[in-house]
Amino acid sequence: MPGAAILPGWLRLEAGTGGQGAELVPVLAGLVLVLLGARLAGALFERLRMPAVIGELGAGVVLGNLGLLGWHGLEPLLATPGLEILAEIGVLFLLFEVGLESDLRAMVAVGGSSLLVATLGVVVPMGLGFLVSRGFFPTHAGVAHAFVGATLCATSVGITARVLSDLRRTASAEGRIILGAAVIDDVLGLLVLAVVTGVIAAANQGGTLALPSLLGIVVKAVLFLAAAIGLGRWLSRPVFRFAARQPNDGALLSLSLAFCFLMALLAQLAGLAPIVGAFAAGLVLDEAEIRSAGLERGRDDRGIAGRMKPLATFLVPVFFVLMGARVNLSSVAVPGMLAFAAALTLAAIAGKQVCSLGVMTRGVDRLAVGLGMIPRGEVGLIFAGIGSTLSIRGERVIEPAVYAAIVAMVTITTLVTPPLLAWRLGRTR
Amino acid sequence: MPGAAILPGWLRLEAGTGGQGAELVPVLAGLVLVLLGARLAGALFERLRMPAVIGELGAGVVLGNLGLLGWHGLEPLLATPGLEILAEIGVLFLLFEVGLESDLRAMVAVGGSSLLVATLGVVVPMGLGFLVSRGFFPTHAGVAHAFVGATLCATSVGITARVLSDLRRTASAEGRIILGAAVIDDVLGLLVLAVVTGVIAAANQGGTLALPSLLGIVVKAVLFLAAAIGLGRWLSRPVFRFAARQPNDGALLSLSLAFCFLMALLAQLAGLAPIVGAFAAGLVLDEAEIRSAGLERGRDDRGIAGRMKPLATFLVPVFFVLMGARVNLSSVAVPGMLAFAAALTLAAIAGKQVCSLGVMTRGVDRLAVGLGMIPRGEVGLIFAGIGSTLSIRGERVIEPAVYAAIVAMVTITTLVTPPLLAWRLGRTR
Repeated sequence: MPGAAILPGWLRLEAGTGGQGAELVPVLAGLVLVLLGARLAGALFERLRMPAVIGELGAGVVLGNLGLLGWHGLEPLLATPGLEILAEIGVLFLLFEVGLESDLRAMVAVGGSSLLVATLGVVVPMGLGFLVSRGFFPTHAGVAHAFVGATLCATSVGITARVLSDLRRTASAEGRIILGAAVIDDVLGLLVLAVVTGVIAAANQGGTLALPSLLGIVVKAVLFLAAAIGLGRWLSRPVFRFAARQPNDGALLSLSLAFCFLMALLAQLAGLAPIVGAFAAGLVLDEAEIRSAGLERGRDDRGIAGRMKPLATFLVPVFFVLMGARVNLSSVAVPGMLAFAAALTLAAIAGKQVCSLGVMTRGVDRLAVGLGMIPRGEVGLIFAGIGSTLSIRGERVIEPAVYAAIVAMVTITTLVTPPLLAWRLGRTR
Repeated sequence: MPGAAILPGWLRLEAGTGGQGAELVPVLAGLVLVLLGARLAGALFERLRMPAVIGELGAGVVLGNLGLLGWHGLEPLLATPGLEILAEIGVLFLLFEVGLESDLRAMVAVGGSSLLVATLGVVVPMGLGFLVSRGFFPTHAGVAHAFVGATLCATSVGITARVLSDLRRTASAEGRIILGAAVIDDVLGLLVLAVVTGVIAAANQGGTLALPSLLGIVVKAVLFLAAAIGLGRWLSRPVFRFAARQPNDGALLSLSLAFCFLMALLAQLAGLAPIVGAFAAGLVLDEAEIRSAGLERGRDDRGIAGRMKPLATFLVPVFFVLMGARVNLSSVAVPGMLAFAAALTLAAIAGKQVCSLGVMTRGVDRLAVGLGMIPRGEVGLIFAGIGSTLSIRGERVIEPAVYAAIVAMVTITTLVTPPLLAWRLGRTR
């Protein structure tokens, strides 16, 4: 009975009266907490004319760090696997929505800028991260520095996408460049991670990296994106036009969800993050066409995005509250690590400002693009987590103190972006 | 990597490139399968003018029994804990929706009938089940017969609620009596289970049942329902009127979901099934009032039910497909158990037909009420599952063969109800 321990005695479950809910209890308790916390904090920040997402992250930071005040009651609740699955589905819904709102042609129009921004945004932060790590830990292996650098690569598109959506600037040139670059970034970042991990595995066995297996990863990733955008668009068109014309109103939503999950699954299997697949799924679907097919049936048609909205209202805040809750405030306070964490954060921020020089489209605010690329969020945490499990000849690639600094860097880059981006986009509106 | 084993080699996940999705892969694959299977089978049955839920259950039975054809690839997918959590949330949404559509005053108007139907529906099937078990297994302990009887008590309101909803007959007198009786039934059934379990525990220790602990369970359950309906209605009114007037469109949905989950949690903690809490949450909320508060703000207001619909479209079919998938067709084919399973099924069906004699409201179709009370569904499976874990002095209370027969009874009562009820309600419309 995982939920029983966290509840006062008079609320404990009687053994044998409800086997069904055994795993459901902590999920339900977590959802009540997360939904109410997110809504209250979000409403507060909206009153202060700031994006609701900051409130949701803040609610998560508070809920996740009550242990510092001596109360650990909520920790098992927020770490429930069921709740994490819901959060991961929530971020898929967010990226699917962002993809639906994105116009593929408009994204291709800024594709050159996105590609250059993304490439600079991977190379420069990785180099800076490598140098910072070598400066602080001269005795560590070179590949460990490369790993720290790799954690600075990938932009967390979730945070920026949400801020752009809150400010209704997803379709702006800045928005399209940032989203396009973040997607390319994720691909490049995951390739860098695969390469570094491969090098470490080879070094650990005293050998060198097998080039064919590395090439296989790269080819799969490129093939996935080409297939998703080319083939996906061509195949999905007749299916979705058919679904929009079905008498049962639920057919279009079920099919859209299945398509979103399938693309996320395929992205994962191609070695990319599932959110890349969800974004591609939304990008491929042509809302205007589907809506007109629904209207042909004489239906008041809200399209896929309108049907997705309640699902996003339910699950997207779960993701942001849990992401805030992962922030361990005490990990930053390790003596001597504050300077390393600060240097790493500066490298992360400065590296992504350099990448805004890659913007070639006229009339685009470079600072807004640079700011939008700052957050490392979930991807940085995943990289750090993987690094902490790897070792070269018995020595950890990412030792606990370095891990704490990376978590601090992810925390700060994630938390500073929404206010900075909201401020900058508010000025240039 | 739980998902890797079930996938062909060329689709396997590269180690180290996507730690995030480790647990997400089987959930995504399961969701794609369940959503597409449910939608296709549901559409097929709708064309045949039968409730879509039969198609969804049928899709589950097919997906869950492909092992009989020698292909076990889908079994780990359908048993993924993440998918089960989604299914359990799905059935909460269904009961919450049914509660929203139910008018408390109209339910009280048939409350006498519901109470009598429920009481007869617990006492008669339990007695018949006891006799059938004693007839087939004269050497088993008396308390084991009582346990088999207890598995025949509780009506599975999910199936009937869905059929009534598909046929738009939730608000009919038959619909209200069935739903009211099923809720009371769940309460009585869970009390019976608690009593039988307590007796077994006491017998196992060579003692007798402690009356105070038993009374505690009963008091908690009764208190929960009284508090939910009385206090809940009074407390929720100002909160939801306030939420409906908020500028942010998502506030009402978030609050409704939090309320639904909170009530499900409290029901579970009070020793009742979570679905009873979700139903009570929907029953307590006054949609008409909330919608008028939304309209005061000049908003095109779909109310809570309208906002819940996409959520139900997403998750309710997951529940029914998984319930179908739990049916193990080969368990019925154990030699000699077919007769016991048939006798138990007949006792389950006959017992609930007797209970329709308790209908005192005029002009109500007794046969429709009796048919609506037939399915045992998830509650029967839970009871059987608990029984198979209990033992008296080393001997199992529910042995594997008896368990298989109970599963068969649950299967048949669940599968026969939708067509029978659809036929009867179609005739009396």
